[in-house]
Amino acid sequence: MRLPWLQISDAIKDRLTSAGAPGIWAANISDEVMYAEVSGRQTHGFDMLEAMLTRTERTCEIPLVEDNVSSAGLVVEAKGHPGPVVAAAAVDGARRAADEHGIGVAAARSASTFLAAGYHPYQLALTGRYATIAVSVAKARVAPIGARRAVLGTNPLAIGAPSTHGPLVIDIAMTPLPAAEVRRRAKTGEPLPPGLAVDSEGEPTTDAAAATEGAIFPFGGYKGSGLAVLIEALAGGLLGVKCGLRHGDLRGMVFIVIKADLWASADTVSSAIGDLIEDITSSPPLGGEPPAAPGLRTHRAITTALTYGVELQPSRLAKLTALGVDLPSSR
Amino acid sequence: MRLPWLQISDAIKDRLTSAGAPGIWAANISDEVMYAEVSGRQTHGFDMLEAMLTRTERTCEIPLVEDNVSSAGLVVEAKGHPGPVVAAAAVDGARRAADEHGIGVAAARSASTFLAAGYHPYQLALTGRYATIAVSVAKARVAPIGARRAVLGTNPLAIGAPSTHGPLVIDIAMTPLPAAEVRRRAKTGEPLPPGLAVDSEGEPTTDAAAATEGAIFPFGGYKGSGLAVLIEALAGGLLGVKCGLRHGDLRGMVFIVIKADLWASADTVSSAIGDLIEDITSSPPLGGEPPAAPGLRTHRAITTALTYGVELQPSRLAKLTALGVDLPSSR
Repeated sequence: MRLPWLQISDAIKDRLTSAGAPGIWAANISDEVMYAEVSGRQTHGFDMLEAMLTRTERTCEIPLVEDNVSSAGLVVEAKGHPGPVVAAAAVDGARRAADEHGIGVAAARSASTFLAAGYHPYQLALTGRYATIAVSVAKARVAPIGARRAVLGTNPLAIGAPSTHGPLVIDIAMTPLPAAEVRRRAKTGEPLPPGLAVDSEGEPTTDAAAATEGAIFPFGGYKGSGLAVLIEALAGGLLGVKCGLRHGDLRGMVFIVIKADLWASADTVSSAIGDLIEDITSSPPLGGEPPAAPGLRTHRAITTALTYGVELQPSRLAKLTALGVDLPSSR
Repeated sequence: MRLPWLQISDAIKDRLTSAGAPGIWAANISDEVMYAEVSGRQTHGFDMLEAMLTRTERTCEIPLVEDNVSSAGLVVEAKGHPGPVVAAAAVDGARRAADEHGIGVAAARSASTFLAAGYHPYQLALTGRYATIAVSVAKARVAPIGARRAVLGTNPLAIGAPSTHGPLVIDIAMTPLPAAEVRRRAKTGEPLPPGLAVDSEGEPTTDAAAATEGAIFPFGGYKGSGLAVLIEALAGGLLGVKCGLRHGDLRGMVFIVIKADLWASADTVSSAIGDLIEDITSSPPLGGEPPAAPGLRTHRAITTALTYGVELQPSRLAKLTALGVDLPSSR
């Protein structure tokens, strides 16, 4: 069934509001969940809605604490608040600091996950006015290269920049396979490629279920491993939250927002990055497919869904209905 | 022959001064070249000194132009000035902005290369007071994944953070092999691993000489490729310099400096990152070697050389002597 984007997002907002979410919270959660769902990240889309409703019920009376630690720096303290609400508050602070100072930074400390790292870099790039770097740290699942145990989080890194062809965005966890894909294989019994994981005893394994109890190696050998370690330091160490094995389980996320027209005009910047995208996609392809520019497929999925509506598979519709999201067709 | 660090660096400074370098320039260049040489990056060490002397002679009368584009943002305009001089001016601006605002950013535009991306992140981490992200863009040598031609630079990324065990630092180009290693194999005829490069016609090749005329693929598959693209946008697109194939050859570099005690005390941060390093190095090893923490080997090499002197191989000594660097033993 195809429904207009706004009908779905309004229905989700209404459901969140009925769970106690203030208007801005409901919008933050609904917008981010819609983005993830429509861009093909269902595990961060409607699949997250149940947890978001529970968190909303638990925390909607507890105000987020924001602390301006410097003129261009902010921290948001969350107590299990929904990730999208925490991230939106942090990003808003970093963006306002960037407007004033050219660059701004905000950190968020939270007991819960932050959902999609790429969402805000995408949204800020969409305005044509900001480039964003987002790093985050989560619970230990990743072994540094050469080690037999999980020390690092999957530590997603997202970077976004504006262009005349839409936001150029990466949103990459430090593992070669998404955590959700490993969990899926753990259920189906499909093996992992060799050399990717160790079990809880530190022995190499291709069994996905054993890997979820052990550790996964980072993508890209020692370079990917180094990147994962430094993200752990930036998003964990600087915040005094989860950093290696001995600093608790609080998650950390850091957003750095740079005004896109800081060094050249916004038009120059958007055109140059648009030309970069064309230089990539117009390159002679190595395989059958033309080379892709990062994030452009997401941008196309979002704009198509905004224009022509969202195609809802019966199982996704059923998920919403089961959570009490009151869609027009289900009335 | 083993010589005290300061004797070598002073002799290099004297030589640069005699070529016309103002005192601070000579120190910037000498310090960065010593860092690269001693940490095993000889191509960015004494090998660079001849070019640095030539650039110094050409540009020492031309002032660097610094422009404060916002309260926390700066740009340094270079006209072929030596890379270490340009980078040091930019970093100094970003650091001062970080002191005042919590975060600072500086860009540099230059016609020449910047040498080692990791040098300033290392030095700033050494003070215990700053975390740094450095990105830079250089001439097209790298093919985005799935493409048959070079569009991207090798685009080094460096990140540094302080710890009780010394600076935690990565300094990674986006190629799986250093450009210098590819050039070495091009000379010796040693092949590249398959799947790493295309020749000037876009055909897959293992011939290193053909690869230097064609393109190399990024490390880490589509994740590494995406990272290389976004660095091109940040260090090139935002600055209005080299970005893909159509925006000239000016190099760009961006330094983001964050005050390490912005969100937690400097002690908490250094301890947490020090513990992370221990958690990595004390992990059960997968192979024979204990797992390494990024940058620690460099730190050990630097501190050893500062304490016990620098072991100069005859060929390296001869290189310095040939450039007119007047070392005590060669007098």
